[in-house]
Amino acid sequence: MQTSIGLIGLGVMGANLARNAARNGAKVAVYNRTTEKTDAFIKAYGTEGTFVACHTLEGLISALPTPRAIVLMVNAGAAVDAVLQELTPLLSQGDSIIDAGNSHFADTQRRMIELQNKGMHFLGMGVSGGEEGALLGPSMMPGGSRESFALLEPLLRKMAAKDGGGNKCVSYIGGGGAGHFVKMVHNGIEYGDMQLIAETYHLMKSVLKMPNAEIGETFASWNKSRELKSFLIEITAQIFLKKDDLTHAELIDAIKDEAKQKGTGKWTTQAALDLGVAVSTMTAAVDARLMSSLKPLRIRAEKEIGALDLKTVRLTTRALKDALFLSKICSYAQGYALIAEASRTNSWNIDLAEVCRIWKGGCIIRSTLLKTFEEAFRKDPSIPNLLLSPEIADFFRARHGKWRKTVAAGALGGIPLPAMAASLAYFDSLRTGSLPQNLTQAQRDFFGAHTFERNDKPGTFHAQWGN
Amino acid sequence: MQTSIGLIGLGVMGANLARNAARNGAKVAVYNRTTEKTDAFIKAYGTEGTFVACHTLEGLISALPTPRAIVLMVNAGAAVDAVLQELTPLLSQGDSIIDAGNSHFADTQRRMIELQNKGMHFLGMGVSGGEEGALLGPSMMPGGSRESFALLEPLLRKMAAKDGGGNKCVSYIGGGGAGHFVKMVHNGIEYGDMQLIAETYHLMKSVLKMPNAEIGETFASWNKSRELKSFLIEITAQIFLKKDDLTHAELIDAIKDEAKQKGTGKWTTQAALDLGVAVSTMTAAVDARLMSSLKPLRIRAEKEIGALDLKTVRLTTRALKDALFLSKICSYAQGYALIAEASRTNSWNIDLAEVCRIWKGGCIIRSTLLKTFEEAFRKDPSIPNLLLSPEIADFFRARHGKWRKTVAAGALGGIPLPAMAASLAYFDSLRTGSLPQNLTQAQRDFFGAHTFERNDKPGTFHAQWGN
Repeated sequence: MQTSIGLIGLGVMGANLARNAARNGAKVAVYNRTTEKTDAFIKAYGTEGTFVACHTLEGLISALPTPRAIVLMVNAGAAVDAVLQELTPLLSQGDSIIDAGNSHFADTQRRMIELQNKGMHFLGMGVSGGEEGALLGPSMMPGGSRESFALLEPLLRKMAAKDGGGNKCVSYIGGGGAGHFVKMVHNGIEYGDMQLIAETYHLMKSVLKMPNAEIGETFASWNKSRELKSFLIEITAQIFLKKDDLTHAELIDAIKDEAKQKGTGKWTTQAALDLGVAVSTMTAAVDARLMSSLKPLRIRAEKEIGALDLKTVRLTTRALKDALFLSKICSYAQGYALIAEASRTNSWNIDLAEVCRIWKGGCIIRSTLLKTFEEAFRKDPSIPNLLLSPEIADFFRARHGKWRKTVAAGALGGIPLPAMAASLAYFDSLRTGSLPQNLTQAQRDFFGAHTFERNDKPGTFHAQWGN
Repeated sequence: MQTSIGLIGLGVMGANLARNAARNGAKVAVYNRTTEKTDAFIKAYGTEGTFVACHTLEGLISALPTPRAIVLMVNAGAAVDAVLQELTPLLSQGDSIIDAGNSHFADTQRRMIELQNKGMHFLGMGVSGGEEGALLGPSMMPGGSRESFALLEPLLRKMAAKDGGGNKCVSYIGGGGAGHFVKMVHNGIEYGDMQLIAETYHLMKSVLKMPNAEIGETFASWNKSRELKSFLIEITAQIFLKKDDLTHAELIDAIKDEAKQKGTGKWTTQAALDLGVAVSTMTAAVDARLMSSLKPLRIRAEKEIGALDLKTVRLTTRALKDALFLSKICSYAQGYALIAEASRTNSWNIDLAEVCRIWKGGCIIRSTLLKTFEEAFRKDPSIPNLLLSPEIADFFRARHGKWRKTVAAGALGGIPLPAMAASLAYFDSLRTGSLPQNLTQAQRDFFGAHTFERNDKPGTFHAQWGN
């Protein structure tokens, strides 16, 4: 029997998901608030599969057999609640709503309970891969109703990207907001990856004085390596080759260095803080975008603070590669630690190896390295931190020296490397039994009587400090 | 006429504030949910001034002349709402409630509106200085109702610490939650200061191999300098001299290196992210406490990752002093930028020079350096970042070299310096017109068609990337 789904919201992502479903044999009833968009969609893509154009929500409802499955692809936030408010009175018991947008996991948790109370199923599904992924095969992170997932799994498996190991990039993540949580962390990791690549580029340009073509070639060669082969390195290599239609020089030099953001990186840090997990590399990436956005202030500061007398430092591209590689692993270790903690707190029972597996294809952070991470979690699912995997630890033992030199070179040479430095501090904090926070505890006890623990016996203690 | 106030919540902070008010001539009606605490308070301190012990809220209300002023010193969060729910039906129009606890500014905004709608005044007042400050003179940051502040100002001025310049450490901050917001940032800065001192200690201990006595002496000598003279450096010096009653060695070495936290540092980062302001040094401090709390994991990681071959690096205490000094200034620059942005967003009209002034005494972050900051903001209230003050910029031009060496030494030597490195990256990001986020924008446009801006003309652009 042909699977039938409804899809609400025909923006680029929604339209491409609808086409992907239709190309994979589903009958897709499509609806958009602006009916012209629905008509334009049918005109452009109507021949690709079985579509039903609906101009009203009532029409959409009656076009679908029960139990219905309706995918929302509308802007996260108030728009989702607005659609749900209109839609749910029209639904029948047992129908499923699938929110495939970038909703905040807490909203998803709330909506799932609200829908459950009305006898309906709610699936919060993170979808990564951008426009192209949505059409040709995204990575999908569904969480919430198991019933909805069971209903849709055959179609989702057809629609999803290949994972490179004979399977597809979709897997039930866990209950409640688990799917959107994991998608959020995916995006946080994406921020980290992008910032680490930007810092590497900064060093190539400003310390190694490499021209754009050479930078592009270097990234292209890294994209052939086991360590760094990935979608983001691949497009980075291509970016440096792109000529500007206006100036005929490389386009990269014409682009303003003010990074925008849409909020999922910020959400990752805020959620991590609520869960008490340090995601310092991703946070540094968010902050770096914020700093970049202060361009008028930076231009003024450059003039007023003036040129500084800075050390000439020597670096090799090999050192940069090690720095990027190890910094990246630390960022992922933070992300997995965050997912693990959220899973514990919410009883989501998330399988980290599966998370790695479904990120291997379709999504923005897809890379060969994810296979190594997947294997590490399959080998020891209870490992408390990725860095404790023996294979991963080997990478650090073998390469930390050049990483350190790179971070030191940035400090001495005046090149800001906030994310690389955060990764290095993460590694050096994690691998030592002795940190200096005994002083922090002493200070807190001194001025606030907050007490402290001792190394040599259990209990809490308070000292009479001062003279 | 004698000022009368009520005070609810006789924990250490509440009790000391009540005593402070009474010692300064106020008649203080005290109430605690557990009546034994009220009686014990009166027994211990009843002779210090005019107190009225109240065993019920009704008793408290009838002990006060109208318009009443009632100070709450209860745990932030649900406890404040619970007290307000019981208390407000008993109040009269025009009465004032002063929340002197560590409430979240958003809660304060909400409560102020709720009370206003009932015809009452609400003052959200941050109080810093710990137990001793509350008794002998805290720094107080009142925000919200101007009427409440006018009523209490004479008493608050008597109670507050001296600012070292002939004035007292209290000043109306702004409307709504402004007072609690500024107190929150104060605490975020406190986290930053404490972490920077901890990192300095780590280098002294592990790189310079200084014994505790020498570390204490060094901090004591720094506490005599214009750059670092401050309460936190003063108590740090004393901490290293303190002997353990049990082992007779220095107590610092017996204290477990797991830092606890109560949440205001986390709030600062979360609020900063919502406002789009990078407070990377304070965030690194919060994350460093989280990393320290993973002691069992760290001990395991130390064993499994093993000792690494690390560079021996050379450092002087002079370099450490410069690093601590400049890192600290960057953290404050972030804090002021955050307050300025919150003030703009909420139309609070906060005077940053006043904020510096009232932090000069009474509070945990009091220091001589705050006078320099105060002067910078008085000289140019519109300065967009503290680092653009000519006097402050001079500090950086003169000392950045040793700061860089220190951060590089940490990277090479395996000592995590997350907050110092974050400060350095902040400085190096701010002082350059050219950051590498043109690549970030190119990547975003490549995979998500998010568009980019150009350096050479206005507008937004999208390129056809890839092959």
